Amino acid sequence: MKIMVFGLGALGTVYSCLLKNQGHEVSGLDRDVVAAAVQSQGVKVSGIWGEHEARLDRTLTDPEEMAGLDFDLLILTVKSYETGSVMERIARFVCPRAYILLAQNGYGNFEAAARWIPAERLILGRIIFGAETTGLGESKVTVIADDVVIGSPGNLIAGQVLEDLSLVFTSAGIPTRFSPEVMKFVWAKIIYNSALNPLGAILEVPYGKLAENPNTRTLMDNIITEIFAVLKAHGQDTPWPDAKAYQEAFYGQMVPSTALHHASMLQDIQRGRKTEIEALNGAVVSLGKKYGIAAPVNEVIVSILKAKEEMQN
Amino acid sequence: MKIMVFGLGALGTVYSCLLKNQGHEVSGLDRDVVAAAVQSQGVKVSGIWGEHEARLDRTLTDPEEMAGLDFDLLILTVKSYETGSVMERIARFVCPRAYILLAQNGYGNFEAAARWIPAERLILGRIIFGAETTGLGESKVTVIADDVVIGSPGNLIAGQVLEDLSLVFTSAGIPTRFSPEVMKFVWAKIIYNSALNPLGAILEVPYGKLAENPNTRTLMDNIITEIFAVLKAHGQDTPWPDAKAYQEAFYGQMVPSTALHHASMLQDIQRGRKTEIEALNGAVVSLGKKYGIAAPVNEVIVSILKAKEEMQN
Repeated sequence: MKIMVFGLGALGTVYSCLLKNQGHEVSGLDRDVVAAAVQSQGVKVSGIWGEHEARLDRTLTDPEEMAGLDFDLLILTVKSYETGSVMERIARFVCPRAYILLAQNGYGNFEAAARWIPAERLILGRIIFGAETTGLGESKVTVIADDVVIGSPGNLIAGQVLEDLSLVFTSAGIPTRFSPEVMKFVWAKIIYNSALNPLGAILEVPYGKLAENPNTRTLMDNIITEIFAVLKAHGQDTPWPDAKAYQEAFYGQMVPSTALHHASMLQDIQRGRKTEIEALNGAVVSLGKKYGIAAPVNEVIVSILKAKEEMQN
Repeated sequence: MKIMVFGLGALGTVYSCLLKNQGHEVSGLDRDVVAAAVQSQGVKVSGIWGEHEARLDRTLTDPEEMAGLDFDLLILTVKSYETGSVMERIARFVCPRAYILLAQNGYGNFEAAARWIPAERLILGRIIFGAETTGLGESKVTVIADDVVIGSPGNLIAGQVLEDLSLVFTSAGIPTRFSPEVMKFVWAKIIYNSALNPLGAILEVPYGKLAENPNTRTLMDNIITEIFAVLKAHGQDTPWPDAKAYQEAFYGQMVPSTALHHASMLQDIQRGRKTEIEALNGAVVSLGKKYGIAAPVNEVIVSILKAKEEMQN
């Protein structure tokens, strides 16, 4: 396959390196300093999937350089708050037959991208392995919770195409499966992240502490209940029948297995970066407003988190 | 006058020292280590009201020692979350003719005390000068925003008695006035504190920053609006006709004049002490529940603040 990886951060480095080593033609695009490092030293992956390094076929620094280039797949690894603006900017340069894999967190990426690219070319990914940047073009895979799940919201792409693509990723070392209900998996991750990530960042404690304390436990219960109410109005199923069933799995299995985990939003804030709150609790609040469903706990959490983010910067 | 000061912290030290120097008979009660220090070195006051020191007539360490003692006034300076339990414990030892001045912050102190002492003997104080402990029995007066206001909620005590008492305090150097609407003044302070203190503690920024940031500004607007809705149901007036008028005064005068002030709750948390959140936003939420008025922003703020407090301890 001919693959373009847009963004060579932690995730883009993993995808470009492993896919290149599987024999695909892989190009990468990032800002000058990253592209220069990748051009001269290649991409490197370490961590639980072993040590890998590769030379990419091409490095780009400007989306316009994609014009006229032929590729089958573009993997978009930018942050969720950039999805809309990046897609607007690159839509006319992207090879018109290429599929675009949206690898962002949270809700709204597919919707934002679909304003610029036909939905029949958009693949949504629920990525639930963790990778962190260890240098320019260098990434460490730290944890894997489940296979990557890919799919087409509305199932506008033939299942076989997505099965084949899953096999490409899995063969490259990134366990991936196709689901005709990818949005369910995306929401499962959003609910988990919305309950834990902002509170962990506001209070600066690991996830386990949030489940132990009765005040934060009540807050998380309410965050989850509000999300299920909004999803019901939105007509969106999750893998659980209701908030109560989710909460049982949440406190019973999910939080215990990530009890020592620190909120990524806290790291974002401490490094002066923007968080993805708008694609998590912020998206819940926006969807709620659309359907007249109040989500006051999520709304207050968004405001406090954004205040903390802005006051740090 | 014969005066008993219950609690010789920052506030109790100021009252006992200045009243003693004005010629009153003043006893003080506190735990052993404080009482011993005051017994041997007296009480000392510094700061904007000048340097003062005094020897108290008597130091007590156990409320039972009050049994049989004759005094005109007991000044209760414990924290708001202790008002109920302290009054329950001391009610039968307090001289039956003595008035009790409640000098705590927040809402609920009068109500809690009135369960143990006839309301005709309870005086409510709205104290809005700031003092901090500089040692055992040593206190520094750092700021004065307005006169102390005293009164009897329900006006169960003759105005002349309260006018006379105000003169006693004012003569001693603590500017004080009587108001037949003391609860209005108490609530004015509660609203100010509820808007700023917990958010300042959660975000660890001075008050001015909270008014500058659009997210915290919206949160404070909502906190204030919720309080005015609860007070309307409660039939409690404030010095302002509505939330909007309050907000104008709040952002126009109050916050600018305390822009560099740090939340006392943050100091409480950092020192491993309990905060007075239950008598501020917590009391608003409780009152709201009584009248069926939702106060979700206050409720979330209470939960996050209490979580931070408990996780620190």
